[in-house]
Amino acid sequence: MGGDKGPLITIPAAIKAVEYLPHLNLILCGDQDVITKHLETHNSASHPQLSIFHCSESVSMDEKPAIALRTKKDSSMRKMLDLVSDGQADACVSAGNTGALFATAHFVLKTIPGVERPALISALPTNEDGRNVFMLDLGANVFCDASVLYQFAIMGAVLAEEVDGISNPRVALLNMGEEDIKGSDHIKLTGNLLKESQVVNYVGFVEGNDILTNKADVIVCDGFVGNVALKTCEGVARMLFKKLQLFLSKHVFARIVGKLLAPSIKKLFKSLNPDQYNGASLIGLRGIVVKSHGNANENAFFAAIMEAVKEVERQVPEKIQEKLEQSV
Amino acid sequence: MGGDKGPLITIPAAIKAVEYLPHLNLILCGDQDVITKHLETHNSASHPQLSIFHCSESVSMDEKPAIALRTKKDSSMRKMLDLVSDGQADACVSAGNTGALFATAHFVLKTIPGVERPALISALPTNEDGRNVFMLDLGANVFCDASVLYQFAIMGAVLAEEVDGISNPRVALLNMGEEDIKGSDHIKLTGNLLKESQVVNYVGFVEGNDILTNKADVIVCDGFVGNVALKTCEGVARMLFKKLQLFLSKHVFARIVGKLLAPSIKKLFKSLNPDQYNGASLIGLRGIVVKSHGNANENAFFAAIMEAVKEVERQVPEKIQEKLEQSV
Repeated sequence: MGGDKGPLITIPAAIKAVEYLPHLNLILCGDQDVITKHLETHNSASHPQLSIFHCSESVSMDEKPAIALRTKKDSSMRKMLDLVSDGQADACVSAGNTGALFATAHFVLKTIPGVERPALISALPTNEDGRNVFMLDLGANVFCDASVLYQFAIMGAVLAEEVDGISNPRVALLNMGEEDIKGSDHIKLTGNLLKESQVVNYVGFVEGNDILTNKADVIVCDGFVGNVALKTCEGVARMLFKKLQLFLSKHVFARIVGKLLAPSIKKLFKSLNPDQYNGASLIGLRGIVVKSHGNANENAFFAAIMEAVKEVERQVPEKIQEKLEQSV
Repeated sequence: MGGDKGPLITIPAAIKAVEYLPHLNLILCGDQDVITKHLETHNSASHPQLSIFHCSESVSMDEKPAIALRTKKDSSMRKMLDLVSDGQADACVSAGNTGALFATAHFVLKTIPGVERPALISALPTNEDGRNVFMLDLGANVFCDASVLYQFAIMGAVLAEEVDGISNPRVALLNMGEEDIKGSDHIKLTGNLLKESQVVNYVGFVEGNDILTNKADVIVCDGFVGNVALKTCEGVARMLFKKLQLFLSKHVFARIVGKLLAPSIKKLFKSLNPDQYNGASLIGLRGIVVKSHGNANENAFFAAIMEAVKEVERQVPEKIQEKLEQSV
């Protein structure tokens, strides 16, 4: 039910996903009548891989997380997480209210034994074609101390290895300088912990200008800093895209070419908004939760479902637990 | 002497500046022989507006700030700041070692009475042509508490008003969400202080994706967050520029146009690297200090000199002191 456009996006994406993967079964949580109507629109009301789990409520996009958690016990978001917690679903995907999803997922699923805090992680493209960088935390936590950041390094490395198949992923800490003496005390402390780690391939500090230069496969930071950095990426890409469009429309030589190239250029710039093309994952929990962007389109929500499938196949929570146990 | 290319850049920029402004006098601090040689190259060895202040040392780009401060007492950087402190110069401009400049400037010039911490501030372009946004702190301080951030709001507003002529500038706090309940405690506390302020036109929180959308004239944040955000802007702009170049070179239709447009596109993207086209200022000190990017070219260093001239003409330190006194 969630996201800016709700079932208008999520239902066709779900249909596309089950048609793409014959072994995939999706449980659609939400208002039965609304879902049925949308399924009928796509001639899929009795699709054998799709079932409906009726929920009488839904969490609105501007609802306060604590209120949603306390009062919306029959919401599609809560029920979706309950299904994962009860083992009736292997993973869940939502485009709904981010804060409410974090709070409810944390409460319902609980963290993996030994994990202090869950983290929001996503893959961003780099200047090296086909290479992504996994960045965490992107906003699940405001401030993280050194032991939490150290765990994030391990969790991020597991995701990079399992989801993108990067062996021995290079892990870096986001800092305001590359030298050892720079940055905040908890970042320096985390750097020291990582240097001594036997399970993490730590490559040192990176600065904001090197997030996308393929210097690392995993970049670790506080949720506050990560959220600002990710959204700054989006903002810069959007501004440059608009300026470029204006620029192309103003120059006689470029106008025709600009029109021919507009779709490709748009795609190029959109790649900088990772939530548009795949989901972010809330990791460190005893269950798989993928968060799709609120304004995701059908393809983006489809990609988020595929991300969840991949994490199920690769058993990401189990791998995180194993790696954490090795690190102690 | 500072910056990646030293006098090769700074001397021609200085000559350009005094030729542009007949009332400007520049004191060139550094090795007399080297400076003279470079002036001779440009037929300006006896330029009436240029004088040389010989210094036997210089601070290297990778020298540790504390070492530079303690041991390089006859460095061009130290002497430049001494001249400002003694009233022999109205302002100073350096492309040298950033950390050493901060430490030495703070030590030599001291803060304006009442100012807790100096801040590094710079103007970034927005999607609205001709409108800049002033962002601080960009890395002079790692962490800033609410009272420091509150002062940064006042100092930033003074700079936006005096340097860019924006009356009653809109001041925002960089946060990980726009809602009041989001973000770290010190940011929320700063928000409350600013809401009650009589001297600041506070417009609330902005997120990373709105840094460049002209929602605010001044954006206040910790040095750590600001440094990451600024460098992320640079990194994204650089990556997109490279991808666009590659893209234009690959498409037959675009290749010719791409070549014709390359300089303009480059300029468009470079505008996202503020240090390339003007200087960042270290404000809150009893004197004007402009920091030019280490790899600034002649035009960028010239722009940094002009920035310093403007701050002298607009009496920025005095205005900051006045505004702070009003706010108490």
